Amino acid sequence: MKSDIGDKKDENVAGNGLLHRRALLKASTLGIAGGFLLPAQANLSSIPGAPQSVYGKPSRFTGLQREQTAGHPFGPEAGSSSSPLQSLNGTITPNSLHFERHHAGIPDINPERHSLTIHGDVNQTLKFSYENLLAYPMESHRYFLECSGNSYRNTLPTALDLTAGSLNGLISGAEWTGVPLHYLLDEAGLGKDSSWVIAEGADASGHTRSIPLQLILDTAMVALYQNGEPLRPAQGYPMRLFVPGCEGNISVKWLEAIKVQQTPAYTREETSKYTDLLKDGTAEMFSLGMEVKSVITSPSGTMKLRRKGVYEISGMAWSGARMISAVEVSADGGKTWAEAMLQSDSQTNALTRFRIPWHWSGQPSVLQSRAIDSKGNVQPTRNMALERYSMANYYHYNGIQSWQVDAKGIVKNVYV
Amino acid sequence: MKSDIGDKKDENVAGNGLLHRRALLKASTLGIAGGFLLPAQANLSSIPGAPQSVYGKPSRFTGLQREQTAGHPFGPEAGSSSSPLQSLNGTITPNSLHFERHHAGIPDINPERHSLTIHGDVNQTLKFSYENLLAYPMESHRYFLECSGNSYRNTLPTALDLTAGSLNGLISGAEWTGVPLHYLLDEAGLGKDSSWVIAEGADASGHTRSIPLQLILDTAMVALYQNGEPLRPAQGYPMRLFVPGCEGNISVKWLEAIKVQQTPAYTREETSKYTDLLKDGTAEMFSLGMEVKSVITSPSGTMKLRRKGVYEISGMAWSGARMISAVEVSADGGKTWAEAMLQSDSQTNALTRFRIPWHWSGQPSVLQSRAIDSKGNVQPTRNMALERYSMANYYHYNGIQSWQVDAKGIVKNVYV
Repeated sequence: MKSDIGDKKDENVAGNGLLHRRALLKASTLGIAGGFLLPAQANLSSIPGAPQSVYGKPSRFTGLQREQTAGHPFGPEAGSSSSPLQSLNGTITPNSLHFERHHAGIPDINPERHSLTIHGDVNQTLKFSYENLLAYPMESHRYFLECSGNSYRNTLPTALDLTAGSLNGLISGAEWTGVPLHYLLDEAGLGKDSSWVIAEGADASGHTRSIPLQLILDTAMVALYQNGEPLRPAQGYPMRLFVPGCEGNISVKWLEAIKVQQTPAYTREETSKYTDLLKDGTAEMFSLGMEVKSVITSPSGTMKLRRKGVYEISGMAWSGARMISAVEVSADGGKTWAEAMLQSDSQTNALTRFRIPWHWSGQPSVLQSRAIDSKGNVQPTRNMALERYSMANYYHYNGIQSWQVDAKGIVKNVYV
Repeated sequence: MKSDIGDKKDENVAGNGLLHRRALLKASTLGIAGGFLLPAQANLSSIPGAPQSVYGKPSRFTGLQREQTAGHPFGPEAGSSSSPLQSLNGTITPNSLHFERHHAGIPDINPERHSLTIHGDVNQTLKFSYENLLAYPMESHRYFLECSGNSYRNTLPTALDLTAGSLNGLISGAEWTGVPLHYLLDEAGLGKDSSWVIAEGADASGHTRSIPLQLILDTAMVALYQNGEPLRPAQGYPMRLFVPGCEGNISVKWLEAIKVQQTPAYTREETSKYTDLLKDGTAEMFSLGMEVKSVITSPSGTMKLRRKGVYEISGMAWSGARMISAVEVSADGGKTWAEAMLQSDSQTNALTRFRIPWHWSGQPSVLQSRAIDSKGNVQPTRNMALERYSMANYYHYNGIQSWQVDAKGIVKNVYV
């Protein structure tokens, strides 16, 4: 028995019912009344079930799926799908539920007909087949991937009554395995004034991004596997660039070329699109690192608390600036804060799960989480996060997500 | 640039081509001839691809699937399927490819009609619905799960020419999330002489196992999520017991009851089945912890090396006795050994990926890996591993896997 648990039972650590993160919970304090809600007995034990299969699937009772956001009316293949954060736990997103964002749909690439060329300001142009790359030394790391447009709906003037995934689900976590990019760049031989790489994908959008060499020399990889298996087509099969901690669109999928040069390429995506419009009408370019951020995934939008008593507040935090060092949770709309428990195996630029028990008295409450990273960055309030930007800006919003629990237990996205 | 890499290039660290784990590889040393095998160009860039989806799937070019081993001829629902280790990398097994082993198939359980009862030598009997358990504090950990019968084919008199997954694929790795069992046992209140729990599943086999309390008080959980999503039916949906480091069958799936008592129950599974038959005709019971073990997954059985030159030898190691502290690799059938690189985020009772570069000269070679755990246990040779057991024993085989590469580059399971 872990004796440090019992010692702290029933200890309140912040306003409106936040309990110590190691509080000892019991069915009585949970508010589970009447003999623990005895369910009807299914009496399954005499019926043999389905046999094993070559490829597994989820239970029909989970209804697990991603939400698709509409693409362009004349081009449905340009759109995205969001991870259902409210149905997930831990830090890994299963590959079938990892968020997607495509500019011209998912190409169906035969790896034997695909290659990666490294060219430009290098000593020798190199061209790698998929099979060639498989022979190179690989590394595996758990990383988050976030679309720079994640949570943009919370920048709109009115709070939308949607789920955690619909609002914030363009973020996922996975174990990525691939060839460190510096092996390939070393082999090509960088010109002495090289300072940018231009990464180009093989899809129909001609998606092309300029990335400072500085940003990718140590940590970027040509990713070949995601959560153990070869990349899915929606994630760039047979290969993608992966730049940890940065906006997803520079981790170019279906990677077919890396050009080394002394300046950025100023492609369509980095002039018309992935720039951040500021209040003064100018736009910030190459703001590639993702901010410190967190979201409570349970309880969260559209859920209903069906009883008073104790719940585990659970969510995810991440920062492109390295590790998450703490996550604070408030149950009174930001008046008081308590420190949540962090999952123990947190890694640089990876999702971190946080958890804290909360006693819901039945009163209206506002739940919030605030992440702090190892460089001391603190997740801002919504107002602070919006301050620099034009109202027309789409990108890099990292304001605190507020969930209101009303007296009926209904949970709803609110701005406070 | 990582300067420690270049310093060690071309350094031989053991016989028959094993290179330093940080050797600097280049296409020239890889043996990639003739302009890097230029593939035919697919010219995909003008064709929009498939739109995003609510639920993703692998590429049609990967052919990823589990191998099913035959169940009983009159009961196909009693069987298993193996993870295709030879196609995977990193340490996470995607849920659709996690190995399965069922005694009476996969029940299709509605979580609203399922409950978990804790009874026996306790102060109060408790009964939890699925929804009740979701309110309890949870933890997430990456753990391996291994069937006690994994690799039994390598105990047979003749080496079978099969893949790494067919031979050794009843092992997988995942991030498991659930409620620590000690919370629930604490709440029920253990009788003072309690020393065993009897875990019972809801499937038609009546699968029931006795487990020493000592073994599960600190680390066992009632698992509710696997790699982020709710458990799959094949893995126990809506809930399973999870006992890290131990043979898979005690992590009882579709968990519906835990009975606390002073003695084991001596159920059918632990008398007729999951016992280890020794040479002297006696059988060892309750040998629950899994041994230190490893397997090279690439190159591995049925693969073909299509050129001479450098390859990355890659594989997985694990031990029920805690952490993997080292993995040694031999390319000359065990005469000389070199230490492989371990994946950096290794955890207790989790899969650990190891990697080392190898220069294949084109000569016949025998590749082997040997894991060493943090308690000093060393993975034995095949002969040593078989020494204690009857030839009729199925379980707990952890001998070194040997892959022979012949002069044509064909890789084959061999006994040496």
